[in-house]
Amino acid sequence: MTTRVESDSMGTINVPNDKYYGAQTARSLANFDIGGEKMPKEIIHAFGILKKAAALANHKLGLLDETTRDLIVAAADEVIGGKLADHFPLVVWQTGSGTQSNMNVNEVISNRAIEMAGGVMGSKKPVHPNDHVNMSQSSNDTYPTAMHIAAVEAIEGYLIHRVEKLRNTLHEKSEEFMGIVKIGRTHLQDATPLTLGQEMSGWVAQIDYALAAIKATLPQLKELALGGTAVGTGLNAHPDYAVTVAKEIATLTGRDFVTGPNKYAIMAGHDAFVGASGALKQLAVAFMKVANDVRWLASGPRSGLGELTIPENEPGSSIMPGKVNPTQSEAMTMVAVHVMGNDAAIGIAASQGNFELNVFKPVIAYNFLQSVRLLADAAVSFNDNCAIGIEPDRKRINEHLNNSLMLVTALNRKIGYDNAAKIAKNAHKKGSTLKESAIELGLLTAEEFDAEVKPENMVGPLKVKKGD
Amino acid sequence: MTTRVESDSMGTINVPNDKYYGAQTARSLANFDIGGEKMPKEIIHAFGILKKAAALANHKLGLLDETTRDLIVAAADEVIGGKLADHFPLVVWQTGSGTQSNMNVNEVISNRAIEMAGGVMGSKKPVHPNDHVNMSQSSNDTYPTAMHIAAVEAIEGYLIHRVEKLRNTLHEKSEEFMGIVKIGRTHLQDATPLTLGQEMSGWVAQIDYALAAIKATLPQLKELALGGTAVGTGLNAHPDYAVTVAKEIATLTGRDFVTGPNKYAIMAGHDAFVGASGALKQLAVAFMKVANDVRWLASGPRSGLGELTIPENEPGSSIMPGKVNPTQSEAMTMVAVHVMGNDAAIGIAASQGNFELNVFKPVIAYNFLQSVRLLADAAVSFNDNCAIGIEPDRKRINEHLNNSLMLVTALNRKIGYDNAAKIAKNAHKKGSTLKESAIELGLLTAEEFDAEVKPENMVGPLKVKKGD
Amino acid sequence: MTTRVESDSMGTINVPNDKYYGAQTARSLANFDIGGEKMPKEIIHAFGILKKAAALANHKLGLLDETTRDLIVAAADEVIGGKLADHFPLVVWQTGSGTQSNMNVNEVISNRAIEMAGGVMGSKKPVHPNDHVNMSQSSNDTYPTAMHIAAVEAIEGYLIHRVEKLRNTLHEKSEEFMGIVKIGRTHLQDATPLTLGQEMSGWVAQIDYALAAIKATLPQLKELALGGTAVGTGLNAHPDYAVTVAKEIATLTGRDFVTGPNKYAIMAGHDAFVGASGALKQLAVAFMKVANDVRWLASGPRSGLGELTIPENEPGSSIMPGKVNPTQSEAMTMVAVHVMGNDAAIGIAASQGNFELNVFKPVIAYNFLQSVRLLADAAVSFNDNCAIGIEPDRKRINEHLNNSLMLVTALNRKIGYDNAAKIAKNAHKKGSTLKESAIELGLLTAEEFDAEVKPENMVGPLKVKKGD
Amino acid sequence: MTTRVESDSMGTINVPNDKYYGAQTARSLANFDIGGEKMPKEIIHAFGILKKAAALANHKLGLLDETTRDLIVAAADEVIGGKLADHFPLVVWQTGSGTQSNMNVNEVISNRAIEMAGGVMGSKKPVHPNDHVNMSQSSNDTYPTAMHIAAVEAIEGYLIHRVEKLRNTLHEKSEEFMGIVKIGRTHLQDATPLTLGQEMSGWVAQIDYALAAIKATLPQLKELALGGTAVGTGLNAHPDYAVTVAKEIATLTGRDFVTGPNKYAIMAGHDAFVGASGALKQLAVAFMKVANDVRWLASGPRSGLGELTIPENEPGSSIMPGKVNPTQSEAMTMVAVHVMGNDAAIGIAASQGNFELNVFKPVIAYNFLQSVRLLADAAVSFNDNCAIGIEPDRKRINEHLNNSLMLVTALNRKIGYDNAAKIAKNAHKKGSTLKESAIELGLLTAEEFDAEVKPENMVGPLKVKKGD
Repeated sequence: MTTRVESDSMGTINVPNDKYYGAQTARSLANFDIGGEKMPKEIIHAFGILKKAAALANHKLGLLDETTRDLIVAAADEVIGGKLADHFPLVVWQTGSGTQSNMNVNEVISNRAIEMAGGVMGSKKPVHPNDHVNMSQSSNDTYPTAMHIAAVEAIEGYLIHRVEKLRNTLHEKSEEFMGIVKIGRTHLQDATPLTLGQEMSGWVAQIDYALAAIKATLPQLKELALGGTAVGTGLNAHPDYAVTVAKEIATLTGRDFVTGPNKYAIMAGHDAFVGASGALKQLAVAFMKVANDVRWLASGPRSGLGELTIPENEPGSSIMPGKVNPTQSEAMTMVAVHVMGNDAAIGIAASQGNFELNVFKPVIAYNFLQSVRLLADAAVSFNDNCAIGIEPDRKRINEHLNNSLMLVTALNRKIGYDNAAKIAKNAHKKGSTLKESAIELGLLTAEEFDAEVKPENMVGPLKVKKGD
Repeated sequence: MTTRVESDSMGTINVPNDKYYGAQTARSLANFDIGGEKMPKEIIHAFGILKKAAALANHKLGLLDETTRDLIVAAADEVIGGKLADHFPLVVWQTGSGTQSNMNVNEVISNRAIEMAGGVMGSKKPVHPNDHVNMSQSSNDTYPTAMHIAAVEAIEGYLIHRVEKLRNTLHEKSEEFMGIVKIGRTHLQDATPLTLGQEMSGWVAQIDYALAAIKATLPQLKELALGGTAVGTGLNAHPDYAVTVAKEIATLTGRDFVTGPNKYAIMAGHDAFVGASGALKQLAVAFMKVANDVRWLASGPRSGLGELTIPENEPGSSIMPGKVNPTQSEAMTMVAVHVMGNDAAIGIAASQGNFELNVFKPVIAYNFLQSVRLLADAAVSFNDNCAIGIEPDRKRINEHLNNSLMLVTALNRKIGYDNAAKIAKNAHKKGSTLKESAIELGLLTAEEFDAEVKPENMVGPLKVKKGD
Repeated sequence: MTTRVESDSMGTINVPNDKYYGAQTARSLANFDIGGEKMPKEIIHAFGILKKAAALANHKLGLLDETTRDLIVAAADEVIGGKLADHFPLVVWQTGSGTQSNMNVNEVISNRAIEMAGGVMGSKKPVHPNDHVNMSQSSNDTYPTAMHIAAVEAIEGYLIHRVEKLRNTLHEKSEEFMGIVKIGRTHLQDATPLTLGQEMSGWVAQIDYALAAIKATLPQLKELALGGTAVGTGLNAHPDYAVTVAKEIATLTGRDFVTGPNKYAIMAGHDAFVGASGALKQLAVAFMKVANDVRWLASGPRSGLGELTIPENEPGSSIMPGKVNPTQSEAMTMVAVHVMGNDAAIGIAASQGNFELNVFKPVIAYNFLQSVRLLADAAVSFNDNCAIGIEPDRKRINEHLNNSLMLVTALNRKIGYDNAAKIAKNAHKKGSTLKESAIELGLLTAEEFDAEVKPENMVGPLKVKKGD
Repeated sequence: MTTRVESDSMGTINVPNDKYYGAQTARSLANFDIGGEKMPKEIIHAFGILKKAAALANHKLGLLDETTRDLIVAAADEVIGGKLADHFPLVVWQTGSGTQSNMNVNEVISNRAIEMAGGVMGSKKPVHPNDHVNMSQSSNDTYPTAMHIAAVEAIEGYLIHRVEKLRNTLHEKSEEFMGIVKIGRTHLQDATPLTLGQEMSGWVAQIDYALAAIKATLPQLKELALGGTAVGTGLNAHPDYAVTVAKEIATLTGRDFVTGPNKYAIMAGHDAFVGASGALKQLAVAFMKVANDVRWLASGPRSGLGELTIPENEPGSSIMPGKVNPTQSEAMTMVAVHVMGNDAAIGIAASQGNFELNVFKPVIAYNFLQSVRLLADAAVSFNDNCAIGIEPDRKRINEHLNNSLMLVTALNRKIGYDNAAKIAKNAHKKGSTLKESAIELGLLTAEEFDAEVKPENMVGPLKVKKGD
């Protein structure tokens, strides 16, 4: 590996020739050999946007010449495009302000811009990592800004339509199965009937609630710290910088970012991530419910509930047909549990700010973005490999429904509560159906029973007849 | 203890004569001798509202006669007023649907109404606990409705104005101290200055963000399950019941409750509590930051930071004056930590629904309402016993500010970065002030130093002079 | 309410005449009106032991005269006996060192001792709350000592035998049902058979593992901070005090408490509670598994798994016989979830120590002791009201077993894998039993089938015959 | 990319020619495109050991011929050695039993063994992935066995000596600084003195407690499920297999693994990971305390506590000397917080087993092994880059000590409590030292003061003089 010399205020250090990063990145690599979890790629991407926006804003405010601006923008575009991913080697477990990743970006953009300009990498000319790329910025306001940009991009640009894909599939299934009457279950015990479509509509509504909850947290994430510089006061920044750069970011992303009215809170708190992670947890919890219902309803093939069938995507048992392990439910519930753990970490981390800075930024970003990614991917995987193939086992559904003793409530009006209870008790004792029991006890004929006991009439409020 | 005989479908059981509750409550007491955490009083209160609203709605829909309605309303009013608190002895750790507490309410209202009507307690005449008090209801839709009513009442009626009280005190202090320049701290290290008012404005903004986050979760909590009856279909309920009873509840509480469009999700999920608890956690996290900043800034009296003084409410050290333990910060941070624990429990509980019912309702209600109560009470306690008495120690603040080496950045423009750094390094080496160092090195006179180094000019963006 | 005047270093304050507590307790009541969660009674009880042991040790070391010792011991015995419970009104959310509860105990013992001696309450004569009751102590070492005593007493004296009661019931059931062959389930799907006794033996083993884990954490909890005084150095204590008082506590409790070799860690950390709470969580997790298995196996009565029946303790459905809600499982799983939340709070709280003190002591104690209490009580409730009545539904178990397609694996040796698979596939397609399918395909006679397919031979490793 | 055809019971599928994995791995890749978190390398390594041990045991029991054994062993050794890392592409978010990773290992070992034997990859001859590599095994017992092996190897082989390295550094520092008297701090307030060595000894003791707690959880992790096969009964395994293969694993690893006495609990529970994760959390909590104390004591350079100096590893402020950001503390506390989040996920996951299987295995393994890795690496990073360079700032330490008003307690014996308090109050009022105040009040001469107030006599229990 050939190397070149890079320098910072502590002196010089060798870095690999084939990497754009500089001295501070190299020091961080040496000083933080912890785990291997890299700074999330969403953060690097957001930093690309941020650095481009800063160069544009600094130029507009007369602080940066056009040539330097264009060089920074060109290099930043490569960061945004993901072309320089190999040049961001730092791990999450570094300085808690994310300073080293901010410098990593500054160094990479500087050296790539220098290269474009035909200069000497490491010379810091003509594009200086601090003076130009980091102009009007501090790690203390850039890193939280990158967190906010990344979070919003992840939610609006990655998560929501993936979750909606699953939501829509379930909604279509719900509509399709709206007429299939089945037994309800409360306390895991047989209860009064509802339709399969009604049951699935509950899943859809849970996901809708979660999506609404997530969207309601976005306004706080769209407020940016950039312009606060070192401690939130905006020292050394142009008075119009904060507003200008937020507008540039909004334009570049097409999302309605604004400058935060109080930078101190955003740099020292990160509370917005707590609320937003709580909403992600709400989605995780909804997914847990849906995935659990699906696998329980598909349990069997003989000795489970067996009311649904799901696609068989991989070998279950080589000899036993019909054994379809609900592997997509398993992946999804593992994701849900993991998101709950991430939420716990985010809450603790966000609570630990002191004075003008919270120094648990990277761990918050890491956990939050992982939660978003996993929920989105799990939604698609569950959709494509399970939800679209969910089918009712109508035979089994009818068996459960017709065997149920809960239908006896339909007889109260006709033969009175006491006789109805007699039928049920006899059926329970004999293991017979309600119909068999009713006939055996001579309380109803088969025809009368069928006329009265119509489960399809039990899946909604009382029908109010004219004249009632 | 004299007793009377009460009965339910399992038979008879003795209950104390001086209690209004009946057989099912008595059975629950015997079967669930676990811990001692009572069903939250907010739930009982909400049940009072619910039963009153149900009676009014049932009457409006022609299902309940006026006399019975009035008896139920009268008894329910006593429940709402808290007069019957001793008659709700059940613990949280009971049936996971809260059925037994629903029956406890039915029994108490029934017997109290019977008493008012001059009847025989336990006779279920003229007001039957099931047929009348629980008319058009099931535990499965009443308990979640009581949860939602209680949660909204607790947040809107108890929490918000208490938190605002603290928020307003901190805001006033922030305004009052807006001119006091002090050293900033990032990474716990000396940083560029800001004003004490700016620092405190960050606390205010954190609380404002949390309050906004909490309010954004209310719409989901305001959607009620009532009318879903046993499994969400509304079986046996009047088709207009759900809308009617939600309106009654809205009227009685003065809050904009509505009937939930999908009852299945609300009865089987409780995901709304996950999002709302996440927002409560955001407030807890903000409180943690504020309370920690206060106690660190008040640390000392001699060997801490000592920039703030706080009221002395109880003996600190009997011999050492000035040792004021930050006990209100301690109570508040303990509350914050506890709320984070409650949030963890709520998330797990809400994820465990199956089919038509989540049977972790009481543990969700218990944790959620405790979080609300503790945050609200801690806010008031911290406000009254600490925040209102926060005062700056201007002498200490100035010492820190003037000793700071960070102010050297103000000299960059006048004498260049290199000379400024020389002054700082010399001061650090000698332990002197920047001014002493500057004079010693012959780079600036005292007057020149004072003219350039004005911390009050360093607490905002660059001043843009005309002509710049 | 008549009052008397009590005093502390801040001056005088009125306290109710019928209470033994003094000025510092009264101030705490006024300053911490937060929630209503009282300092756990186990802590008060432990303080009684501690104060008695301290008086005995101080006397042995020549620091306290016999009369004063005896008065303190007599009053402390009443605290231990629970007779003075009404005199400890303070809440958890107070000073984070628990100072105010330590003073509450000092004041109550002092005044009760004064009363016994015929003195004037509040006079601090002849038994002074600080000089005598708190002799050789500081809140900083007493409160953590009370935490450790209370935790060990709660685990060894309350929890373990209650959990063992349930464990033993399940073990007996496991033995009783060891011969009942049933279908196994993995991924919720039908799997190869095992016996009901084997399945239940897994529950017993999970509980045994958890009990072993809990016991393994006791040594750290048995190390006491007492003797560390204010900061852990033991300033102002007799050099033999720490060892002596630990011995007294060991004698009084009959448990092998020792003085901690490093007081700094115990006063500033509380890490022992993190490990111990982790072990309690292990028990909670085991309970979750057991309670879930029970309720799923008892699900039905018609449309669930229905392999077990459990006692019916309260009305399920008034009309539908056989609907037995698994309410004890519900209570137990709610407890399990709550314990997980408590564990989260304990971890955060314990991580927040600074220098010589962790000031999250009461919230740790509150959560830990609640977890112990709830787990113990839930174990007994589940045992008495559910586990002892668990019975197999042999008919249903046999149906599931005999319907199962998994039994086909027993035919591999006799007719080869391919023919066995043919039988299974045909049975799956036709919905018939394996036996019917085998006969239909002409691969085996009924007698041959019965001779080969013996589920009872499939519940263990291969039988190795002589000569094999 | 050239491909070859691989097959499983569902049919054929193309796989890349340069990969050893087969059909089931390829299906999993297609079906689980979720996140990018790979199955931990420790699990793959453990599977290598497991498959080797299984081949050895199967041969010993006469089930596997020598040639096949040797081929499997040779391929497994490459897995163990990490040479085949690129052939294990599966993510964590797959089947919850880890079946697909078990098959991934079977396929890779099979194909690599076939390659060694000169056969055709994908032919399953002469080494079949199921019949030979997976002989006497099921995913249901192999994956948990790999989890246990990986966990024990990670703790005993990776974590403990890394943590001990830091522990020993802190212990040496503690010994070195045992004579440096400094102010103590409780409630963040000045308290009675102790030595820096004493303070640091508390850190050492916290780490020692945590290590002891972790070690106490190993026995449960050393019990292996292997031999339980599909549901824990050991169906199709040789009766001596479980014991034999556990011995092989013990021999190969040099660690005292044994076969678990009850396989049902180990396959369906994973509770051992809950207890062990709780102990890891105890270590995280101890690290949080240590890292926080270090950064607070090193806060400054001018306006913090400043009692310690720590190494400067990267640029802090380019212009301000002495600003050393405590970046290692920040990395360590972020790790601590993350471990707490992981613990939350592990607890929930472990609670979700049903009947004969817990299907949250990969998420438990992922979180647990990440926690171990991060704690170990953070310990080394903190040690090498921070702890070894911790030095006291004696000047600052002495200033704090001598300024302290707490030393006045040393005067009680000489001049009485009241006079001592007078000195302290006067000093507090005037902002003077105790000595200045004492002289000013004429209560002691400078010499008398120095003779009485000796902080070094205040860092332990009372000295008991002969004759006292």
